[in-house]
Amino acid sequence: MRTVSWDETHQQVKMIDQRLLPGEFQEVSFTNYDQVAEAIQTMVVRGAPAIGASAAFGMALAAQISSASEVPEMQADLAAAAQVLQAARPTAVNLAWAIERMLGVANDPGIDDVRALQAAMLDMAQRIADEDVEINKRMAAHGAGIMRENEVVIHHCNTGALATVDWGTALGVIRMAHEQGKNPHVLVDETRPRLQGARLTAWELEQYGVSYEIITDNAAGYFLSSGKVDRVLVGADRAAANGDVANKIGTYMLALAAKDNQVPFFAVVPTSTVDLEIPEGKLIPIEERNQDEVLGIEVKGEQVAPKGAEARNPAFDITPNRLITGIVTENGVVYPPFEVNLRQAVIGSQN
Amino acid sequence: MRTVSWDETHQQVKMIDQRLLPGEFQEVSFTNYDQVAEAIQTMVVRGAPAIGASAAFGMALAAQISSASEVPEMQADLAAAAQVLQAARPTAVNLAWAIERMLGVANDPGIDDVRALQAAMLDMAQRIADEDVEINKRMAAHGAGIMRENEVVIHHCNTGALATVDWGTALGVIRMAHEQGKNPHVLVDETRPRLQGARLTAWELEQYGVSYEIITDNAAGYFLSSGKVDRVLVGADRAAANGDVANKIGTYMLALAAKDNQVPFFAVVPTSTVDLEIPEGKLIPIEERNQDEVLGIEVKGEQVAPKGAEARNPAFDITPNRLITGIVTENGVVYPPFEVNLRQAVIGSQN
Repeated sequence: MRTVSWDETHQQVKMIDQRLLPGEFQEVSFTNYDQVAEAIQTMVVRGAPAIGASAAFGMALAAQISSASEVPEMQADLAAAAQVLQAARPTAVNLAWAIERMLGVANDPGIDDVRALQAAMLDMAQRIADEDVEINKRMAAHGAGIMRENEVVIHHCNTGALATVDWGTALGVIRMAHEQGKNPHVLVDETRPRLQGARLTAWELEQYGVSYEIITDNAAGYFLSSGKVDRVLVGADRAAANGDVANKIGTYMLALAAKDNQVPFFAVVPTSTVDLEIPEGKLIPIEERNQDEVLGIEVKGEQVAPKGAEARNPAFDITPNRLITGIVTENGVVYPPFEVNLRQAVIGSQN
Repeated sequence: MRTVSWDETHQQVKMIDQRLLPGEFQEVSFTNYDQVAEAIQTMVVRGAPAIGASAAFGMALAAQISSASEVPEMQADLAAAAQVLQAARPTAVNLAWAIERMLGVANDPGIDDVRALQAAMLDMAQRIADEDVEINKRMAAHGAGIMRENEVVIHHCNTGALATVDWGTALGVIRMAHEQGKNPHVLVDETRPRLQGARLTAWELEQYGVSYEIITDNAAGYFLSSGKVDRVLVGADRAAANGDVANKIGTYMLALAAKDNQVPFFAVVPTSTVDLEIPEGKLIPIEERNQDEVLGIEVKGEQVAPKGAEARNPAFDITPNRLITGIVTENGVVYPPFEVNLRQAVIGSQN
């Protein structure tokens, strides 16, 4: 079961609708790339690697539905699709990364026939998806390799199979440690405002049989200062060249609390999430989402905030590299100085 | 309108039921001290100063309803009431402080008649309540005195009129600055799990006409690192002799983020909340409340966590004094070294 995939029979992009979990498991299909962009924007699908793969399938779909009979005309259609998909969300760099790879195929001078271009676009989207799973498993092996038995881990947001095509990044490390019999226990940050921890991570951990308890995001500092937490594991939506990491809102304070208590803090980041063009985190664009995500919280069926209240809703924050113990990539675990070593890990993957 | 008061007509303790706000404003009355203890435990009333005053009125009520005809017999009833009320919640020291003052009256050798003892108990409870309002206004004046115009303030939990008998501690400072025309703008931490920020602080700020926006607790670090926040103001449930502060869960990470960005962090703490018997914060008992407070969160009428999920729910954490810029008391603003200066401020109030 993949978070996002190509429905060969119907020639559609298929996704698990993550907004309905854990209450309901439902798949939805999309017949044009506008719908795929909207699904990314409204968070039917989320998580940087899953967003990247979704954009890739959106591009493949754009090729399939293009009425162009000549390659240049189809290339124009694909350029338009790229613009729409690129605008869906600003922070996860995997979106740009995947679109760039797809445009590389679209503009391949060796392809001179629309049928061949359609096939090549779909091949590349499938390859991006397949690679994501394989990369996640390599990251998981590297990450689980540094974990000891019976570790208590704090985890933020969702970084599991649902945040990727399959398997997961930070949660993939925990899953691998569990499969290796290392018996991790996870304190699951609920992750306001969209509660990906309480909804999606808890649901995934139930499936895998990993021991966990949900905590409010506020409680992470309490547990970190208790001396009973061994490690913090998070994903990333974009890492800058110096190792600063943009990740789900709240990660920065979590990292501060880990540092203040000498608890190792690792970000699990495929090289596709590293943006070597951006020298430091403060230059990463941070999305501010609709205030209803904050104000819509209910207890016993009633909205808790006063009618007419307003809210601010930044979706990500920047964790500076000085708070990060290590960055787990598919090419190994990277330690400081990140300025040098992260670039090395990324460029290594491109050779 | 007071959070907790004595209903002279019906000889009952009256409280605003804070669990229903902001949706519904309703007062509830209690005819015995067990009910008052339960109201404290279930958070009909919360906030350290309000808990203290509630316990005082609970003791006064215990005297009123006692069937004792002799003083020693009534003293035994009051000792029993003190035990029940003291057990309601462990962290807020105002509970013990108020009960101790009430027992001082109960055991006053100068009172030799049950009618006189009943009257004296009620007088002392009223005095504790009246003093609370007066002390809050003194704190507010000290705190507002150090605020500049147009400050952006992050505030955690609720520390307003609803957390006290009236006026408030940290929110009282903001209210005073507003009344002085200093035009503060408040970023209101929603304060999971019980959302006292989104529910109660937002509601109070609406009443006072103070400008505010609600944020998730996770977002405080983002705003602190943006350079646009001038101050963090919080209350306390108990301060240790060295200035370490037990306050609503999440305060510690908020203080870390303030420190990391050189944003002044002030705790607004009446001397009744300072426990000179406790040398440092890690010795303060931290209440862990029912997991349903975490798991009960809903979006669109549905519980978000998977069925069967479990949660941990510590209600407070400890902010070490090294993260605190100053402590605002009714006797002035206390700065480091807190070990010396906080004791001075407290003892000064007892002379």
